[in-house]
Amino acid sequence: MPTSTIRESDVDVLIIGAGPAGLMAANALARNSVKVRIIDQRPVKVAAGQADGIQPRTSEVLQSYGLAGRLLEQGNQMHMAAFYNPSSTGGIELTDRVPDVTAPTARYPFEVTLHQGAIEAIFLESMREFGLDVTRPAIPVSIQLSEDELELKDPDAYPVRVVLRHLGHENNADETEVVHAKFVIGADGAHSWVRKTLGIAMEGEQTEYIWGVVDLTPETDFPDIRNKSAIHSNNGSCMIIPREGDKVRLYIQLDESGFVSRNGRIDKGKIGPYQLLEIARKSFHPYSIQTPEKIDWWTIYNIGQRVASRFSVQERVFIVGDACHTHSPKAGQGMNASINDSHNLAWKLTHVLRGWADLTLLKTYEFERRKYAQDLIDFDKQFARLFSGKPRTEQFQDGVSHEDFLKIFQTFGGFTSGIGIHYAESLLTNVTHQHLATNLIIGQRVPPQIFLRAADARPVEIQDLLPSDARFKLLVFTGDSSSRSPLQLEKVRKTTEELHRVLMELTAGRIFELFDILSIRATTKTKVRYNDLPVLLRSHWSKALIDDIDVSGTKGGDGYKKYGVGTEAVVVVRPDGYVGMITALDNPTRIGVYFKSFLRANE
Amino acid sequence: MPTSTIRESDVDVLIIGAGPAGLMAANALARNSVKVRIIDQRPVKVAAGQADGIQPRTSEVLQSYGLAGRLLEQGNQMHMAAFYNPSSTGGIELTDRVPDVTAPTARYPFEVTLHQGAIEAIFLESMREFGLDVTRPAIPVSIQLSEDELELKDPDAYPVRVVLRHLGHENNADETEVVHAKFVIGADGAHSWVRKTLGIAMEGEQTEYIWGVVDLTPETDFPDIRNKSAIHSNNGSCMIIPREGDKVRLYIQLDESGFVSRNGRIDKGKIGPYQLLEIARKSFHPYSIQTPEKIDWWTIYNIGQRVASRFSVQERVFIVGDACHTHSPKAGQGMNASINDSHNLAWKLTHVLRGWADLTLLKTYEFERRKYAQDLIDFDKQFARLFSGKPRTEQFQDGVSHEDFLKIFQTFGGFTSGIGIHYAESLLTNVTHQHLATNLIIGQRVPPQIFLRAADARPVEIQDLLPSDARFKLLVFTGDSSSRSPLQLEKVRKTTEELHRVLMELTAGRIFELFDILSIRATTKTKVRYNDLPVLLRSHWSKALIDDIDVSGTKGGDGYKKYGVGTEAVVVVRPDGYVGMITALDNPTRIGVYFKSFLRANE
Repeated sequence: MPTSTIRESDVDVLIIGAGPAGLMAANALARNSVKVRIIDQRPVKVAAGQADGIQPRTSEVLQSYGLAGRLLEQGNQMHMAAFYNPSSTGGIELTDRVPDVTAPTARYPFEVTLHQGAIEAIFLESMREFGLDVTRPAIPVSIQLSEDELELKDPDAYPVRVVLRHLGHENNADETEVVHAKFVIGADGAHSWVRKTLGIAMEGEQTEYIWGVVDLTPETDFPDIRNKSAIHSNNGSCMIIPREGDKVRLYIQLDESGFVSRNGRIDKGKIGPYQLLEIARKSFHPYSIQTPEKIDWWTIYNIGQRVASRFSVQERVFIVGDACHTHSPKAGQGMNASINDSHNLAWKLTHVLRGWADLTLLKTYEFERRKYAQDLIDFDKQFARLFSGKPRTEQFQDGVSHEDFLKIFQTFGGFTSGIGIHYAESLLTNVTHQHLATNLIIGQRVPPQIFLRAADARPVEIQDLLPSDARFKLLVFTGDSSSRSPLQLEKVRKTTEELHRVLMELTAGRIFELFDILSIRATTKTKVRYNDLPVLLRSHWSKALIDDIDVSGTKGGDGYKKYGVGTEAVVVVRPDGYVGMITALDNPTRIGVYFKSFLRANE
Repeated sequence: MPTSTIRESDVDVLIIGAGPAGLMAANALARNSVKVRIIDQRPVKVAAGQADGIQPRTSEVLQSYGLAGRLLEQGNQMHMAAFYNPSSTGGIELTDRVPDVTAPTARYPFEVTLHQGAIEAIFLESMREFGLDVTRPAIPVSIQLSEDELELKDPDAYPVRVVLRHLGHENNADETEVVHAKFVIGADGAHSWVRKTLGIAMEGEQTEYIWGVVDLTPETDFPDIRNKSAIHSNNGSCMIIPREGDKVRLYIQLDESGFVSRNGRIDKGKIGPYQLLEIARKSFHPYSIQTPEKIDWWTIYNIGQRVASRFSVQERVFIVGDACHTHSPKAGQGMNASINDSHNLAWKLTHVLRGWADLTLLKTYEFERRKYAQDLIDFDKQFARLFSGKPRTEQFQDGVSHEDFLKIFQTFGGFTSGIGIHYAESLLTNVTHQHLATNLIIGQRVPPQIFLRAADARPVEIQDLLPSDARFKLLVFTGDSSSRSPLQLEKVRKTTEELHRVLMELTAGRIFELFDILSIRATTKTKVRYNDLPVLLRSHWSKALIDDIDVSGTKGGDGYKKYGVGTEAVVVVRPDGYVGMITALDNPTRIGVYFKSFLRANE
């Protein structure tokens, strides 16, 4: 007869919820050798449907973990957006096609669509290489934070107590486990148990727009079925998102379909996927979609546009992803915001757990990501209003014109692509000295640029030299410090000695545990000697770069110009790829000041 | 007590030897679902040393099997070649740096270096996905070809009888197996048992140059240690080939080192790797190389420049790779020639085994690859003479100047890169009508070019749409057959009907088993409708391409111009990626004539 057992355990980070946000955090922490566990109450992972759009910045972030390859291999790419509007003869016609992504510096200038299960599988496979898997099914029963101020301020303490129930398989009994954690991450979705249990309020309201979603493999004569297509007809609106293989997702406006009651509610029992398809057909005319034998997935939603009042309790319990912000899926932001929440949090937890940074560093998580979530909802409101609005016609001059819609589509391109995410001034973001590198915007991610390795003239993407390995990166733009310019080389040697002293002091001699250093010289591949730089600037031969075009004449070059670096500068890049501060080559002292604001003093 | 057992088996293709040539053939045939076996007499695979340079064309070929990814991930890339010559102050100095690869259309404009064991592992991993592994250790004991003319001409017969001895492991007895094969491939190296047993003579002679090879991880102040470096000093010649990780291979000239006897022989007992390094040091002055704790691999060689008199016996037994041609390794051609022999042979065997092509198709293997091997040796003689020659100085005006050396280095760039390989006129290579696509050279491989998919504006590399799947590809350049050009669209519709009739007749209705068809239109991404073409030209939506630049403005465009296509043409690409013939859009009949010269008449 099954009986209940109790065991106790401790862990550095416990993650509750194994969706994209939770898995992203788990993978990032496991990669950094943090002692981490992740649990989920679902016995198996999601196989189809749900969120599935990966924005350009998210692809860059995944690449920084070495994960973009599989994403690009499996996913569909959306390069083009098509806009259909009412034609003069009834039905719809093609008004315009424009690039789907409006973000000139995007390394991957397209959105990737892939079902959520496949994206989760990418994280799961990566995590397993670090020896981590999801514990499931396991249900959190209670969560308690210590009330001892000293304990809460002790980075080595385990002030969070979580009781879990592991559901038994077949004849096995349920098991209760008491987990003592240094930190807990609530990644348990829009109905977050962590958030509710800790009494964190959601601010905002439900939207008035109701949409249906259908995933299918269509037979159609519609010429833009493989492009993202926004259809505004006099018979409703519809959006097409092509997906992996030959699959397509349709978003169908339901507001006036007759299925929505006066109070804005919809009875899911009264409508099914084939009825949704029937509604979509009306807006497709004169194009047709045949009725498929099977519908892969469908749903109806009316999601609120809401943000949690707080993203953490005492910097010991954090909420990430849908647990702290919900919005409409049409802007394709949900999973991206979730993944980037965890990307922002994981390296900060790593620094605290390694004893490098003070707990105060963790305050920047809410500061940076809550502001982003609010901006997202402001954008979403405008976008949803325009998208759901009736098209402008002769008869209906108050309607939404194609120009209105296109304008917001492109104006917010930097935002929707994730490329323009800009973290405001904080202890991590020192906004002075921007003039030294005018296009390496402090608070934004480092744009892609190809440089050559000095030793072998191989073109390398700078983003690939900024992996998410929890280290800060110093980009040392030395000017033309080649043997042609002995004075500049001498200056570089001198200031490197000073930089070395600063870094030795900050790290108690273990410089390369906290930092990686790349040098970028303004010289040519035919003249450079990779080994005439001070060793600190070429700790390995592959770390010495030059700003030149490659031997095939097609890649690289003009990096100083594109980054807006005049002659020289040192740029500090945060472990998540965002520019933290900039200083003059001959002023490394400021680097020490920047880091001392959040690194722990060395004993 | 061990006793010997005998069993009999049959197989479509038996491959003897599991080096790069044998594995390439095995993987290609297994991928095409051919019943194939591969044996090797070595109990384990090579782990270090031996051949290790992959030329640009070989990378393209590997990519056509989906294998370039792992190669590029693991291998080192050589982009730059540096030339050092005697300086006026004694020692050497940098004379010049130039691109290592001189082949403007190369998709991968660099050489990849990776040790042979790692390259073999790539093939082995791929083969295993098709359920094939190497049988080892197994020694061929005898090989006999049927003398029955009718049997030799019957494509379904098994006219080759090979007796194998499987060496027993531990207490197991040896086992004898009699294999009846339709075809046998001898890939058993320079001392090929298959070649000798069948009495095929090698033509050519030993070279006079003797070289030593050392693989090590060097500590050095030499600034070009990560470039391919050719060092000509007054104290001997040396070549540096950087490899994966921090490893480097040194080729060291030994002719006048004192270790070579008057008859040009060298006693390997008298010299070791550290003595080789000592000789290299003399040519490095004023740069130094520290003595490493360990040498990864070393050897001494004096390879003959020889070609087998025949590459096949009765088109039933073939020899590939080092079994049919040997040459000096400095030009980095050995493994490349081997891999490309098998690439040339595998699809032809597949066509015969599937009953599509006549046995006469197999004659083109020797025709195409023997000529290439002879050209390779002619080149190698010139290159080796220049490389081993003394440098020109004030005192020695007959020496080799940098200009002489650079000239041959660059003149033969197309050849050494493999990009310029040009198969002569044969039943597979119909050289008329070149004017319809002046830069798709008949007999050469299709150069890389990015087109957009009409349906979703995604940029795709045409080489990736020409996989080594044993099918011929038709590239149908339709001109501007968009709805803007109704006349051209009508012409395309009409000639496509004719093309359809031709292909139906050739394939007895199974067009897509033998062919894949890509259409390339001269129109724009904003105007095109992918689905207004005849279905034959868009059997899947991804097969309809357009010649336009992508939405980011960085990829594709000018494909018609770069390929030298005026307004329209149909280009037949062989399964190995080489252009077979070209015809006018409105003359598909010529396609029928071309294929009837080697495809079997359909019953």
